[in-house]
Amino acid sequence: MTSTKKKVVLAYSGGLDTTYCALYLSKELNMDVYTVLGNTGGFSDEELADIENRTKQLGVVQHASLDITEEYYEKCIKYMIMGNVLKNNTYPLSVSSERAFQAMAIAKYAHSIGADYIAHGSTGAGNDQIRFDLIFKIMAPNAEIITPTRDMELSRETEINYLKENGISANFEKMKYSINAGIWGTSIGGKETLTSDQPLPEEAYPKQVVKTESEKLTIGFEKGELVSVNGEKTQHPLDAIKKIEAIGSQFGIGRDMHIGDTIIGTKGRVAFEAAAPLMIIKAHQTLEKHTLTKWQMHWKEQIANFYGMLLHEAQYLEPVMRNMETFLLDTQKKVTGTVILNLNPKHFFVEGITSPNDLMTDLFGQYGESSKGWTADDAKGFTNILANSLKIYYTINQE
Amino acid sequence: MTSTKKKVVLAYSGGLDTTYCALYLSKELNMDVYTVLGNTGGFSDEELADIENRTKQLGVVQHASLDITEEYYEKCIKYMIMGNVLKNNTYPLSVSSERAFQAMAIAKYAHSIGADYIAHGSTGAGNDQIRFDLIFKIMAPNAEIITPTRDMELSRETEINYLKENGISANFEKMKYSINAGIWGTSIGGKETLTSDQPLPEEAYPKQVVKTESEKLTIGFEKGELVSVNGEKTQHPLDAIKKIEAIGSQFGIGRDMHIGDTIIGTKGRVAFEAAAPLMIIKAHQTLEKHTLTKWQMHWKEQIANFYGMLLHEAQYLEPVMRNMETFLLDTQKKVTGTVILNLNPKHFFVEGITSPNDLMTDLFGQYGESSKGWTADDAKGFTNILANSLKIYYTINQE
Amino acid sequence: MTSTKKKVVLAYSGGLDTTYCALYLSKELNMDVYTVLGNTGGFSDEELADIENRTKQLGVVQHASLDITEEYYEKCIKYMIMGNVLKNNTYPLSVSSERAFQAMAIAKYAHSIGADYIAHGSTGAGNDQIRFDLIFKIMAPNAEIITPTRDMELSRETEINYLKENGISANFEKMKYSINAGIWGTSIGGKETLTSDQPLPEEAYPKQVVKTESEKLTIGFEKGELVSVNGEKTQHPLDAIKKIEAIGSQFGIGRDMHIGDTIIGTKGRVAFEAAAPLMIIKAHQTLEKHTLTKWQMHWKEQIANFYGMLLHEAQYLEPVMRNMETFLLDTQKKVTGTVILNLNPKHFFVEGITSPNDLMTDLFGQYGESSKGWTADDAKGFTNILANSLKIYYTINQE
Amino acid sequence: MTSTKKKVVLAYSGGLDTTYCALYLSKELNMDVYTVLGNTGGFSDEELADIENRTKQLGVVQHASLDITEEYYEKCIKYMIMGNVLKNNTYPLSVSSERAFQAMAIAKYAHSIGADYIAHGSTGAGNDQIRFDLIFKIMAPNAEIITPTRDMELSRETEINYLKENGISANFEKMKYSINAGIWGTSIGGKETLTSDQPLPEEAYPKQVVKTESEKLTIGFEKGELVSVNGEKTQHPLDAIKKIEAIGSQFGIGRDMHIGDTIIGTKGRVAFEAAAPLMIIKAHQTLEKHTLTKWQMHWKEQIANFYGMLLHEAQYLEPVMRNMETFLLDTQKKVTGTVILNLNPKHFFVEGITSPNDLMTDLFGQYGESSKGWTADDAKGFTNILANSLKIYYTINQE
Repeated sequence: MTSTKKKVVLAYSGGLDTTYCALYLSKELNMDVYTVLGNTGGFSDEELADIENRTKQLGVVQHASLDITEEYYEKCIKYMIMGNVLKNNTYPLSVSSERAFQAMAIAKYAHSIGADYIAHGSTGAGNDQIRFDLIFKIMAPNAEIITPTRDMELSRETEINYLKENGISANFEKMKYSINAGIWGTSIGGKETLTSDQPLPEEAYPKQVVKTESEKLTIGFEKGELVSVNGEKTQHPLDAIKKIEAIGSQFGIGRDMHIGDTIIGTKGRVAFEAAAPLMIIKAHQTLEKHTLTKWQMHWKEQIANFYGMLLHEAQYLEPVMRNMETFLLDTQKKVTGTVILNLNPKHFFVEGITSPNDLMTDLFGQYGESSKGWTADDAKGFTNILANSLKIYYTINQE
Repeated sequence: MTSTKKKVVLAYSGGLDTTYCALYLSKELNMDVYTVLGNTGGFSDEELADIENRTKQLGVVQHASLDITEEYYEKCIKYMIMGNVLKNNTYPLSVSSERAFQAMAIAKYAHSIGADYIAHGSTGAGNDQIRFDLIFKIMAPNAEIITPTRDMELSRETEINYLKENGISANFEKMKYSINAGIWGTSIGGKETLTSDQPLPEEAYPKQVVKTESEKLTIGFEKGELVSVNGEKTQHPLDAIKKIEAIGSQFGIGRDMHIGDTIIGTKGRVAFEAAAPLMIIKAHQTLEKHTLTKWQMHWKEQIANFYGMLLHEAQYLEPVMRNMETFLLDTQKKVTGTVILNLNPKHFFVEGITSPNDLMTDLFGQYGESSKGWTADDAKGFTNILANSLKIYYTINQE
Repeated sequence: MTSTKKKVVLAYSGGLDTTYCALYLSKELNMDVYTVLGNTGGFSDEELADIENRTKQLGVVQHASLDITEEYYEKCIKYMIMGNVLKNNTYPLSVSSERAFQAMAIAKYAHSIGADYIAHGSTGAGNDQIRFDLIFKIMAPNAEIITPTRDMELSRETEINYLKENGISANFEKMKYSINAGIWGTSIGGKETLTSDQPLPEEAYPKQVVKTESEKLTIGFEKGELVSVNGEKTQHPLDAIKKIEAIGSQFGIGRDMHIGDTIIGTKGRVAFEAAAPLMIIKAHQTLEKHTLTKWQMHWKEQIANFYGMLLHEAQYLEPVMRNMETFLLDTQKKVTGTVILNLNPKHFFVEGITSPNDLMTDLFGQYGESSKGWTADDAKGFTNILANSLKIYYTINQE
Repeated sequence: MTSTKKKVVLAYSGGLDTTYCALYLSKELNMDVYTVLGNTGGFSDEELADIENRTKQLGVVQHASLDITEEYYEKCIKYMIMGNVLKNNTYPLSVSSERAFQAMAIAKYAHSIGADYIAHGSTGAGNDQIRFDLIFKIMAPNAEIITPTRDMELSRETEINYLKENGISANFEKMKYSINAGIWGTSIGGKETLTSDQPLPEEAYPKQVVKTESEKLTIGFEKGELVSVNGEKTQHPLDAIKKIEAIGSQFGIGRDMHIGDTIIGTKGRVAFEAAAPLMIIKAHQTLEKHTLTKWQMHWKEQIANFYGMLLHEAQYLEPVMRNMETFLLDTQKKVTGTVILNLNPKHFFVEGITSPNDLMTDLFGQYGESSKGWTADDAKGFTNILANSLKIYYTINQE
């Protein structure tokens, strides 16, 4: 006999909010709760097992851990690299971008099991509520959305007390910082990020500086995609990202604060560490400066900035995003070569690149030599013509 | 009786090319040579005196050293700060921007003395020839332009030999690196910058790392302009720039390589050190993230990127530049506050800001609390309406 | 003794929805109703008197007719002309732009009389609800918003019946088309605009073609503002707009259909007639083509397109709008001259312009003649340098 | 025995300049002249035969007439339609775009016959010299370029006299207007286009108004490409263009004046008639308004405007153009449907469209009805959240 209870799929991360929700949905609302974790590369196998175990205490019918890292790479990270996407010139959209893929995976899962409801643990104060809601409304229009934390405006204390009363003993207090980890970076929120003037203390960063000596790192690209690290071919770009992250994070590279506009119109501040994203993007961009033309660089930046803005604002499904991805991909045909980085504690420097398509070339003879393809007279003629519009303007408009 | 010789004004920097030109114009072309140095803050009084002395050996009729630093600030640096202008996300346009002001000062000087010719030492391979020629053609259309280095495609050796033969003994060989210094940064060219993969060696940078301990620096802005450093009011923004440079350069901050497109269509690579520009721009931009709206940030970036491109490409006199400056200035009304930086050897970190206009505010109650100005239902309604266009799109275009 | 009733300010247009609201608020909600009409130039004195009279039947405490046409011109129309703003290359934002000024005037009025509520008659299906709500929330945050038509999802029939039952006899049925008139154009909605393939019938347009013979019209601009029509100076640009409208509308000029995206994500279609806006913008733009540089034109278009988009989307108060207006104003210094138009039934043609700042000049000699300021060799040199980047690109990337 | 004469390929149009060049190259420079006509659809078979015959009088070794219309469509016109490209909102780039394809065809031809020189008849005053030179330099770098008209600054009189003296009797005087015809429009230059204030007289337009009664025209698109006219499928989009041109030109539709910036910095004015381009673009754009999202429209316009600018400025070979074409193509997947136009003497009106992908839909119930997918409360919540950023801004920045 099938259950007559309503089915709810809960986006589950193992954190306080979603743990509360799981118990609340099962116990108070008397639903069949299916927890789903959309893993974008931020969990170890051990962590995933712990999380699954915990769901058993919460009256969950079934827990699913979906590894969506590869889809996330193929449909998004790849384009963020090709576009050198850094929101407000700083933030690699670590969280902003992965939410879309978590939401889509959960919507599909909900559809596959015929869920009546989809729940998530977002509060009413941030971006994530919009990102989840929006995609659920489009991809799972028949499932109603439940958001206990937002609806009841629950405080952390209330949630912790409720869990304690029900014998759930996880030590939530220890978490002074709220951390979200994925393959494309880790965001860190805490009491300092609620101010405008406080940096995060050193110990708040999950990855600590363990190397002090300068080290070289080479990153290989083929048509804009990662193909090698330190001269060794990688099987998949995700392997390259992991390798680069492992190396860079030992230097504490890639930390910064992002201050940006939320979808709901407030300003938000978040700390992050993202060694691989920042090194990969800077390396890729340097390679592009050598292999693309001025107007390719210019238009890539135009498109990619807006791509990042729309991605941040929950618009991954907007059709123009597909058009932009097609554009970005098409610009990468010549973005092949190797970039040499010099790593140091908390900072790095791009030393240079090698590329078969390098446009910085002595094609027309050595710099300063005569046979360079044009003459002094050509340059004079060039400037004389180039001056025309301003000569006319200032002659007509004498002041 | 006045001289019947032709008058030539020579843009003079004291370097090899212009030293050659001075002697060549005076001796071979038998002209009355007036050397002019357009000082944008890159010379000490001692260096200026040395340069003036040298001109006496070269048969120069008169030498003028024009301090154009303040004009350069008021008409350009100010707007580069307001626009956070970094060419290709890297280079503060140190040289690109000052050339316009040197050229304009020289053109005015040439006009004031009724010069028949204007000469400069640019080669035919780079941007400077275009920057000088273009402005001379517009502002001094009656003076003919002479460029011996470009016209005769002179090598450094030829120039040195000619000077030696004429008893000019300056030790030009010592200069392995060609350096251009101004208030807005120092550019460094050398054999490494002719390659794509070589960084500059440590010793090539004029300013060496002398501090190793982390230090705080606070920078104050009022309506987008520099007003204080470490809590002390500065008389003029130029004083602030000098102070910040003096502090930052002790950490070796602000070094990088710029690879960009020259006006004549080639790729060029140059190293630079620009502690003050990079720290000021990053500080200013962070303050803007707190005080401007999303669309102000967006449009400032659009305008400023193009402003930088046109500035780089010798188009300072293009009328749209004045319109863009007016726009940038108008955006700065609320960009007032103090930015806290943390300086370390070769890198720095913006810790935060304080501002009376900070839009990151707990106006509507503390984060996570209830009285925040909107409800969970508002957020749901927001998303439901926001989803409309995509709901329609995907319903009509079912695949 | 003062009334203990709540005070409500109602945005009143004299149409069905707001007539219903006036009676409903007064009779059913027992409020003191203050009706306000924000006149943007679309009403005759007679119409205004009729509207005022009608309010007396509806139990309104006081009616105010605010003429905001001049403010609307100074703060918005002026910039739409300077920016040649046509949404989707078609629509002069006739309604979109005036709503902001009506809302601001009403919010100020509500504040001045200490209103408890502000009401408007918008439905829940269009843009106007957002435009009114948004500005009321910002400028009159303490007044609660009431929208009976939207809240009760009232049909026209329900409204008409309610009015009839209460003895309000206005013949609302006669109005097959819903018309909104202002100085910057008239929008027309009807059953055809709910389809995608039907044009409006001829008779639906308020202004009919009465002239059949071609006629010339000259429009004079000074620094981008209207100063004369057919050679006669006008006192104020608004007089010029009225004169041009009076002339153009006799030809049935300026009709078209606009299909656009509403703020709430749907597509909407509306017909309009806007003789003056379309002729003025085309005239102004032609004058700019003669007096501005390529990059001024380019950036004006960038800025103005977005200005129009934000204006359409209720964002008049967004601070970037002021920055954009400053930019647009700064570009107009040389946009002075006279434009000659040729009017015909339902279309017009710009014949040409005269301007002291016309950059199309024979400055350098007659076309085809020799003394034109540059030589054949200059042009060859120009092209040779211009070809550099592509020569390098195709040499490096031989396929 | 092979000729020892030098081989020159001459871009030949049958006009005065190129006729002069043919004779001059053959007779004065004693070269083997190969004339090549790059036909972009502007010549009848009879005209082509006449032109070929004339070359025989001029001592030409061989004449080739290359029909490049299809290549021109596939590689350029298609994208100009997809991008709704109208330079300065007016001109369909009739001449600007075809020059690139003529130049490329001629460069390939020159290479195939091993030409020593390539010649063209451009003067030194316009755009065409740059368009031809630039492509020849890139695609035929080993052939030297000869431009007699430009180099000798020949007047029309000189050319006519020279031809008369050599017994070439074509009546060049009759041509008061210089006309350039191709499939994508006809440009017309004359004494009026050298002024800023004169329109072209009626008789200067090759195609005269012969229809006076209003007529409907329907144009069918599939994924952005032309597929039918008046309900009849067309074999190739070029057939549709020809059909639409044949219909529209009978109404004198598509005439206007273009004032623009030349590549060499001057302003230029030209008249044109382009019935098919203007009707097709307006039809296509209307269909897009119904089938694309707001951001797709926005970004298409950004990209296409710049595409048009670069095309105009001889940059067809710039790699970013290929990236832009890929983008434009990708946006067209849903641009399928039929557009209804109403043609009248000298003007037309788009009545509407039908499309399976029309996003203007009653998906959520009829306009004004209740079941529209969102509620009044949703709209209120939407606006409340949308107001956040401005509420914060104006609260913080009280003035």
